[in-house]
Amino acid sequence: MDFSIRAANVEDCKDIARMIRELAEYEKVADHARVTQRDLEQDGFSKNPFFHGIIAEVPEQHRTKEGHTKIGYALYFYSYSSWMGRAIYMEDLYVMPEFRGKGIGKALMSKVAQLGLAAGCHQLNFTVLDWNKSSLDFYLSQGCFDITDKMGYHCMRCEGEALEHLAQP
Amino acid sequence: MDFSIRAANVEDCKDIARMIRELAEYEKVADHARVTQRDLEQDGFSKNPFFHGIIAEVPEQHRTKEGHTKIGYALYFYSYSSWMGRAIYMEDLYVMPEFRGKGIGKALMSKVAQLGLAAGCHQLNFTVLDWNKSSLDFYLSQGCFDITDKMGYHCMRCEGEALEHLAQP
Repeated sequence: MDFSIRAANVEDCKDIARMIRELAEYEKVADHARVTQRDLEQDGFSKNPFFHGIIAEVPEQHRTKEGHTKIGYALYFYSYSSWMGRAIYMEDLYVMPEFRGKGIGKALMSKVAQLGLAAGCHQLNFTVLDWNKSSLDFYLSQGCFDITDKMGYHCMRCEGEALEHLAQP
Repeated sequence: MDFSIRAANVEDCKDIARMIRELAEYEKVADHARVTQRDLEQDGFSKNPFFHGIIAEVPEQHRTKEGHTKIGYALYFYSYSSWMGRAIYMEDLYVMPEFRGKGIGKALMSKVAQLGLAAGCHQLNFTVLDWNKSSLDFYLSQGCFDITDKMGYHCMRCEGEALEHLAQP
């Protein structure tokens, strides 16, 4: 199937917000997804953006029954490893179910890897849910490895009242 | 003990590089720490920095026997959650062993939390090694939670030849 991969722009935020909700439903945490189209517009497409996006698009003749041609996305930002230096972090990688198995996810992730290498990054980091076997298998097939299993890293978070409290001097 | 917490500047990179090595030794992966003082200077203190730093400093009378007064640091960068929006990521938090238990680590982390909230972030994220019980206990006591245990997130990485290969179109 014909598809194209390109940098996201502010006009893509409506579709990105839609696909973020779809991904959250797939990950069984739809109630956790609070980011709106407007948040994405402000946070990704103003000065000093918090993230960047990549869009996968199909030609009109392959549009979904709802009329969508933007059918996949990746979000990423630059990060840093105090051991290895510059790194790129892939926050999301998503392809709508009916377009899977056609190399679109691979193409999106490949683009993130290209951008990372071009910026001098030595690592591409991301997370995966342990029950999401098909994603995990895909990532392992690409030569990625699980640093939680291999090295014992656990992801930690502080938010809400705990974050407010921690910030008290 | 008297100490001060302040934003890192380029003159701190020598001490940050030293403490990164100390932390890597503590985490039993000294051979993984390849970042140099010069990398830190370039990556953290030029236009569009990949990270920011915070330094903990003690007065001259408390300097170590090696003469160090910069005795702790945190590195952080801004990140993004596609569910919750703006986030801050704490890459490292380190206090030299002889200065632990005096609230310096807490003060460094508190500063990261303050900066995150000031920038509109809803989350402070970081990782911890599962065998590092004292760090884990400290973080849990601050109201942080383990999203690997709680939600099943595993940290994944692609690097080296696998990253080069992934970037091939």
